[in-house]
Amino acid sequence: MIDCGEGAQLEMQRQRLKFSRLNHIFLTHLHGDHVFGLPGLVSTLGLNHLGGELTIHTFEDGKKILTQIFNYFSRELPFEIKFNVIKPEEAIIFETSAISVRTIPLSHRVQTVGFVFEEKEKLRHINREMVDYFKIPISQMNNIKRGADFITESGDIISNNRLTLPPTPSLSYAHISDTAYMPRIAPKIGAVDLLMHESTYLEEHASDAKDRGHSTAKQAAMIARDSGAKQLLLGHYSSRYKDDNLFLEEAKTIFPNTILNREGLTVSLD
Amino acid sequence: MIDCGEGAQLEMQRQRLKFSRLNHIFLTHLHGDHVFGLPGLVSTLGLNHLGGELTIHTFEDGKKILTQIFNYFSRELPFEIKFNVIKPEEAIIFETSAISVRTIPLSHRVQTVGFVFEEKEKLRHINREMVDYFKIPISQMNNIKRGADFITESGDIISNNRLTLPPTPSLSYAHISDTAYMPRIAPKIGAVDLLMHESTYLEEHASDAKDRGHSTAKQAAMIARDSGAKQLLLGHYSSRYKDDNLFLEEAKTIFPNTILNREGLTVSLD
Repeated sequence: MIDCGEGAQLEMQRQRLKFSRLNHIFLTHLHGDHVFGLPGLVSTLGLNHLGGELTIHTFEDGKKILTQIFNYFSRELPFEIKFNVIKPEEAIIFETSAISVRTIPLSHRVQTVGFVFEEKEKLRHINREMVDYFKIPISQMNNIKRGADFITESGDIISNNRLTLPPTPSLSYAHISDTAYMPRIAPKIGAVDLLMHESTYLEEHASDAKDRGHSTAKQAAMIARDSGAKQLLLGHYSSRYKDDNLFLEEAKTIFPNTILNREGLTVSLD
Repeated sequence: MIDCGEGAQLEMQRQRLKFSRLNHIFLTHLHGDHVFGLPGLVSTLGLNHLGGELTIHTFEDGKKILTQIFNYFSRELPFEIKFNVIKPEEAIIFETSAISVRTIPLSHRVQTVGFVFEEKEKLRHINREMVDYFKIPISQMNNIKRGADFITESGDIISNNRLTLPPTPSLSYAHISDTAYMPRIAPKIGAVDLLMHESTYLEEHASDAKDRGHSTAKQAAMIARDSGAKQLLLGHYSSRYKDDNLFLEEAKTIFPNTILNREGLTVSLD
């Protein structure tokens, strides 16, 4: 989960997302509309007797204030809350054998980071016909999926690209909210499959956006274009606008493959 | 507002309740499901540039933890938050010329009080015909509404009950949540127009109710009957039950004038 606004637990229930699959929460910054759902979510996780642990990735300040809240309202949880203290800088903050998560510092009114989630390169697919032909033993299969060549009993080297097909592409997602327009983050984001970039304002209010540490739809689209992202997801609209489609129209003039975030939207990357 | 669970501000918006009319919040106890809507509500009140002040009636602990939260997340509010520190005892905790609010200590797992809201006796209604007949000057009218007799120029005393009709009845509401069954609170509640009494469980789980510091629908109905309340409102149902009507049926066997609380319900007392 990235950020946790008030009512997040209700939205999880509406979408039938399993609480037991939630093990990591990444907080971009410590403004209430990105945090106030956490105390209730943690209480509910406790009532559901979720075991294991929940890791919250946040700044030192977040660890401090959330610890105070949890200590008061969730004294006896049946799981452990761990904090991974992050900083407003470029860093890999979390890594498993399958994915990595890195931060990009943003420009908002308080310390803020964006997150880039990247799948690592996956195992190559076995070319079943060739593997049968060379009678490759099962014990070698994982090495070959990882790209190793095969050496026959007679000493011949069979190149890996004869035995395998390219892996399923690795997917990536960048979450950039909240921030003023920062052209220099585009190359840091890179060619992600999906970029969520905040667009609190329309270009006609670009100076309000700058003053408040937010972006316009056009600016979000420029970041998408310049990063090489495949698709742009807009979100975090100011309530001063009555029609979200204005954001979509403005962004599409710069970056056509743009969609609007709405409550409950699901986007499939593959 | 009495208690403030997560999402309370959204429900206020759905029901088009004016944020500017919210000046007092009474907290029964400091469990998350009664408090977690407060940080978001206070932020929203701040965004709406509500002036004046907001008074939160809560225990010393509540003042402490909420101050920590507001200080971090709502540093510059355009209104003042005041705390009225209450104790788990019988006391009048708030009073104006029109109403008073008193606490009744309850039996839950943490310090908890119920609240009784009582309108004070209202002004008597002028009997227009008699007032005209005795040519009573405007200057005397407020005294007469308050129950004073009138002395004519010739020194005759005109009794107030010839000049006025009884006042509109004063209304009262008692909010009893959360608590184990406490027969001794019934006379303290008194003959209120509406009693909200929690009914987390059905009588078949009375021992769970007792263990967890909650009541059954039947117990809520007994409190209503013994207090002389005119109407009972049930609420705070455990999610283990699939049909809220089971609570209604159980309570009605003891106290027929019972209704079920549901999200968005409005009850008119007069």
